[in-house]
Amino acid sequence: MQDKKITDLLESFQAIGRTKNQGYTRTVYDQAWCQAQKQCVNIIKELGLVPWVDEIGNLYATADLTWPKEPVILVGSHLDTVVDGGLYDGLYGALAAVLSVSQVAKSEQRLWQPLVAVIFSEEEVSRFDATFTGSQYLLERDLKGFDALADAQGQTFGQVRQAAVAALSPFVQTASCLKIAQYLELHIEQGPILENAGTDIGIVTTIVGQERFLIQLVGQANHAGTTPMDCRDDACQQAVSLLADLYRELAQIPDLCYTIGKVQLEPNVANVIPGLVTFSLDLRHQDQLVLSEAVGVVAKLVDQYRAKLERTTAVMPTQMNMGLQGEIAEACQSVGLTHQFLPSGAGHDAQVMGEQVPTAMIFVPSVGGVSHVPDEKTTPADLENGQRVLTAVLAKLVG
Amino acid sequence: MQDKKITDLLESFQAIGRTKNQGYTRTVYDQAWCQAQKQCVNIIKELGLVPWVDEIGNLYATADLTWPKEPVILVGSHLDTVVDGGLYDGLYGALAAVLSVSQVAKSEQRLWQPLVAVIFSEEEVSRFDATFTGSQYLLERDLKGFDALADAQGQTFGQVRQAAVAALSPFVQTASCLKIAQYLELHIEQGPILENAGTDIGIVTTIVGQERFLIQLVGQANHAGTTPMDCRDDACQQAVSLLADLYRELAQIPDLCYTIGKVQLEPNVANVIPGLVTFSLDLRHQDQLVLSEAVGVVAKLVDQYRAKLERTTAVMPTQMNMGLQGEIAEACQSVGLTHQFLPSGAGHDAQVMGEQVPTAMIFVPSVGGVSHVPDEKTTPADLENGQRVLTAVLAKLVG
Repeated sequence: MQDKKITDLLESFQAIGRTKNQGYTRTVYDQAWCQAQKQCVNIIKELGLVPWVDEIGNLYATADLTWPKEPVILVGSHLDTVVDGGLYDGLYGALAAVLSVSQVAKSEQRLWQPLVAVIFSEEEVSRFDATFTGSQYLLERDLKGFDALADAQGQTFGQVRQAAVAALSPFVQTASCLKIAQYLELHIEQGPILENAGTDIGIVTTIVGQERFLIQLVGQANHAGTTPMDCRDDACQQAVSLLADLYRELAQIPDLCYTIGKVQLEPNVANVIPGLVTFSLDLRHQDQLVLSEAVGVVAKLVDQYRAKLERTTAVMPTQMNMGLQGEIAEACQSVGLTHQFLPSGAGHDAQVMGEQVPTAMIFVPSVGGVSHVPDEKTTPADLENGQRVLTAVLAKLVG
Repeated sequence: MQDKKITDLLESFQAIGRTKNQGYTRTVYDQAWCQAQKQCVNIIKELGLVPWVDEIGNLYATADLTWPKEPVILVGSHLDTVVDGGLYDGLYGALAAVLSVSQVAKSEQRLWQPLVAVIFSEEEVSRFDATFTGSQYLLERDLKGFDALADAQGQTFGQVRQAAVAALSPFVQTASCLKIAQYLELHIEQGPILENAGTDIGIVTTIVGQERFLIQLVGQANHAGTTPMDCRDDACQQAVSLLADLYRELAQIPDLCYTIGKVQLEPNVANVIPGLVTFSLDLRHQDQLVLSEAVGVVAKLVDQYRAKLERTTAVMPTQMNMGLQGEIAEACQSVGLTHQFLPSGAGHDAQVMGEQVPTAMIFVPSVGGVSHVPDEKTTPADLENGQRVLTAVLAKLVG
């Protein structure tokens, strides 16, 4: 059992939530999610650990439930996916957490601090209009609003949550909330930095802050043939000018990530002058001051064009714990792997945990830098490297 | 019966094909179209004219079917609509044609040339992927391909055409193709030029030529947070740059109408870098040389961006007959109305007819310049003005 490999564990999920596009769809509390959580329960038991679940569906694993009420070292990730996502995002870190906890528990080492793996119920906002619900629950945030949220089929978060947790409960015990001393998360990078640099392990310095907007330009729809150019109020022409200004101005801000991912015209017909253009703008930076500067640039331009600006997301950057970053760097050296420090451009449960407890993240390279797609891949060697580093860090922390 | 007004005739169509948006949908051979054509048959009979229909569903009206086989003066328009169009487009000119033919026929005047009104079966390309099918049939163009065309429900042009014509035939006689000496069409302007200038009547000089393209930029879809700016191949950023260049370069060409009406991104999600952008470009000008110059500018820019260019429409400009333009100007003076010459930015049946026979178009002002929408409107005074001018021109031509 000690010889179980992370690649074997991942392989046992290849049929759960598989889509016709050869991707994976496991949204929180759906059938594939339930099947995957049950599979995790089996793995936890096979590895000689004790599983339990909480009211929101977070699944935990530890060697011994009889420890005193002292703060635990928590390690984990999630197994819900985006629609048609890949095999590795979330699931890799969740399974590695369970495997590393079992390896540390089975070693000769005396554990001075309790060690718990967590598989968070939801991180991907794929089914309900709420994200990080698992980690927010664990931190006892106010979640009153979640239960009333409805999915696209009109089912509420509360209904499907209760059914899913009830379906899991025969296998597990319930437990009250944990006190958490530190949180660690292992994840695929989802970007090209480690692969391009040829580095084995990434140590996350910061999870970037994010500001997301919808920007709308209102013109007047009209006939493309009969409306002379000087009589037009063309929302597309205005939008192109604003977009070009945005791309140019935002490019001046070092290390800012800016993305216009969604553009919608009305009526969006070849021979009609567009009357309305709405587009999204996603801004990310690890420094809140720089992010705020970027928002200022956007607001000023949008104002010049008399466009409408609606903020849809605002998340502050989250600093990872310096001490834990050092522990990870030492662990990399101890197992003979190269490492580099880098920010995370994507959100993670570590972002929520990091606001309240010392938190760190370990990245492994993504082939081609792609993620959230069926093609998402990390090599077996890199998968094993990441899990070895995680075990080494946990062994050090509990020792 | 002689006192029948064009406004009364239009009013009798207010319930036919009415939509929940207070617009009108009558696509060729559908139920509303059949009802409208039958209503026209009733009006033709009430006005003392003889109706007949041909194999494609064009409806004709004349005072006397016994004339010799000499070329006729034809006047008309269509009554099919775009989806959720207005009351006036096409229908106004069709009803005015019937009314004017009856007025000339009932006058004391001796008709030296036969006069025929036509209500073309289809002009708006709303149901099948073919346009001007009525006027093309009349000119004996090769229409073999039409019958096999399928609509969105899978019904073929041939099937629904035969059923619709059969449903009309109890009311009408069939007739072989006409020889046409001249063609006239009265239509709402669909633009703001006459209203802005305060002119009663517009005389069309040219129906503009049209070139329509789809332009596609291929990038690489990727995560908006984890893909550094210098590792991106962002199709939207490329498209904005190309669009800005197109707007700037095309603005240098005098009197060119250029419209980007449709833009589609893939996957079109706020936090994903777009991998593909496709947009339409509609170019119109009355001078084919200038239109060709514009196409050259587009091709050069598209090439610079390594984008894909697909031509979807290419229509040459159609000159209106100079002599007929003069007759219309004289008729305006004779009834005390102001006029101005202008090109038509929209396509019309006169575009097809004008390629083979001397053709002219009369425009009346559109309130606010809008058309192809439920709000489309022309004032009762302008509706009557246009019809009076048409009657005066016809009386002159047959005299």
